[in-house]
Amino acid sequence: MTSRSECSPYGLHRVLEPRGVLPQQAARLDATPVCGPDEVLVDVERLNLDAASFRQLRQQHPGGPAVRDAVLEIVRRRGKMQNPVTGSGGMLLGTVREVGPKSPLGLCPGDRIATLVSLTLTPLAITDGLAGWDGASEQVPCQGTAVLFGRSIAAVLPDDLPEPLALSALDVCGAPALTHRVVRRHAPTPAVCVLGGGGKSGSLSLAAARRAGAGRLVALVPSRAEADAVRVAGLTDEVVVADARDPVAVAEAVGDPVDVTVVCVDVPGCEHGAVLATADGGTVVFFSMATSFSAAALGAEGLAADVDMLIGNGYVPGHAEFALDLLRAEPGVRALFEARHGQTPQP
Amino acid sequence: MTSRSECSPYGLHRVLEPRGVLPQQAARLDATPVCGPDEVLVDVERLNLDAASFRQLRQQHPGGPAVRDAVLEIVRRRGKMQNPVTGSGGMLLGTVREVGPKSPLGLCPGDRIATLVSLTLTPLAITDGLAGWDGASEQVPCQGTAVLFGRSIAAVLPDDLPEPLALSALDVCGAPALTHRVVRRHAPTPAVCVLGGGGKSGSLSLAAARRAGAGRLVALVPSRAEADAVRVAGLTDEVVVADARDPVAVAEAVGDPVDVTVVCVDVPGCEHGAVLATADGGTVVFFSMATSFSAAALGAEGLAADVDMLIGNGYVPGHAEFALDLLRAEPGVRALFEARHGQTPQP
Repeated sequence: MTSRSECSPYGLHRVLEPRGVLPQQAARLDATPVCGPDEVLVDVERLNLDAASFRQLRQQHPGGPAVRDAVLEIVRRRGKMQNPVTGSGGMLLGTVREVGPKSPLGLCPGDRIATLVSLTLTPLAITDGLAGWDGASEQVPCQGTAVLFGRSIAAVLPDDLPEPLALSALDVCGAPALTHRVVRRHAPTPAVCVLGGGGKSGSLSLAAARRAGAGRLVALVPSRAEADAVRVAGLTDEVVVADARDPVAVAEAVGDPVDVTVVCVDVPGCEHGAVLATADGGTVVFFSMATSFSAAALGAEGLAADVDMLIGNGYVPGHAEFALDLLRAEPGVRALFEARHGQTPQP
Repeated sequence: MTSRSECSPYGLHRVLEPRGVLPQQAARLDATPVCGPDEVLVDVERLNLDAASFRQLRQQHPGGPAVRDAVLEIVRRRGKMQNPVTGSGGMLLGTVREVGPKSPLGLCPGDRIATLVSLTLTPLAITDGLAGWDGASEQVPCQGTAVLFGRSIAAVLPDDLPEPLALSALDVCGAPALTHRVVRRHAPTPAVCVLGGGGKSGSLSLAAARRAGAGRLVALVPSRAEADAVRVAGLTDEVVVADARDPVAVAEAVGDPVDVTVVCVDVPGCEHGAVLATADGGTVVFFSMATSFSAAALGAEGLAADVDMLIGNGYVPGHAEFALDLLRAEPGVRALFEARHGQTPQP
């Protein structure tokens, strides 16, 4: 262990292979459940797998038990839950067991928390073989331990919201916060389109865009049923139905190009539609982990589109509080979240 | 042919398979050398294959003639030069033969041009069997025809610069233009770091940053030899040597975090170093096609870094003129380009 990594707020001291890289790039982390001076040790209750990762796992491994074995094998081998195909992870829920004397996170033993840094860089050890999980949902009951570093982000769960609801919002809380910031940059009253406006990050982003002063506000969704749900939720008046992967269909559905396009559709191939829907001088924010860097870069160039394209950074200061506040203040967002939870049985 | 595609500025009317996608996504284009109302027909002189594509072709097909046959077969089958493995193409050089009455590009018959949109979306027909090419260089002498659409971008070659030099600058002209824009947004006198400041896009970006009013200006390069070259070129006073793929080394070499970091290093794994080198509230611009979307997004989140991350859009209005102007006005940039050409024999 080199001296520079002895008390790294980035967790360099937990990287086993290859040495010197950050935990997210590491092939393998040291997940030993011993709390370092600026670390926090967490008793894990549940993992919340990233949607793109879970979809890939289900495609590659038919059947719930096979998916469960795949997750166990990844965590056993890597010391963290990072899907080797998608590169993505998820978040976890747990209770603080121990807080190192130099931890800057302000957490106390007994706090129930959700991690807002990705599982891809969180040392994780599973002790129950995921016996309580059927492999059929991205919500994974789990016993084990995780480690937070000095620069890790965690949110204490609120008392006034049902836990699954709060977790769902925290899972995507970077999207509404960054959407709010970008829409404000295009003030006054920019036109905004959210691709995938009926989903979790999409509905929160619609509410954030409205709060940030959006003028025309368009939700693009894949089906009539979802369009009806978004309309009933009152998140926006203008709801259009199109396949986000079909650039020409997206452009026709959106009509006049908008100033800000927010991509919350978790499937590959939405880059060109987003670019075509956006006016020159506008901004596209990509929140989907299925986004292809080269498809976006070459697509905008090929379309001679003078648009800013932002990689959706999952961290914006105050993002957790902002997302929870939207969930409290916007009955429409909450209704969509609750409907989604109704459709996806919780284990 | 559907009505929506009859006179598409995006070239939808040239897509044969599958119908309805954009030319870049198409399996096959119609490369018939007949000039549509808003099209431009070009007599091709040379193809400039994308480096990643050419490398892959040489690996798969041993020997120059085999590489040549592979390129011919791709163009015959697809109606465009898009490497099916890498997905990339390149650019071309030629002379305008015919301009459709509705073309908005402002070109005239006889103009010698370079295309600034990728070959991956440019209808191309080869008529000489690439008889003048030995398959051993990415510079491909070629007789044939290509088609530009209403939204295609092409630059008229300047009279006052050697052609290989102008082409080299045009090939990366998006980088200095976007760097200039981003640095100005952070005015006054933001600190700027260019990772890969000794390369083509890197040296142009350094010159662009200085012109945009950068205060502290740091070039990060991989070797002492390259550091000396950048110093001699006078592009900046502060040159540091580090492996851009080592985030901790990058952060230590750069020292105080900068306001804008520009990534011009064409190898994977530079995302985290760029984020670590950037101050909260700053911007990272990724120009490398080797950038991983998820590594950037999750990396910034994992480091709790409040930075904007831009996908380097290859198109910014005026980018070609700006890059050529930097090459003319900055002897240091020109010297670095010429040294690079000295090392790479031109056919």
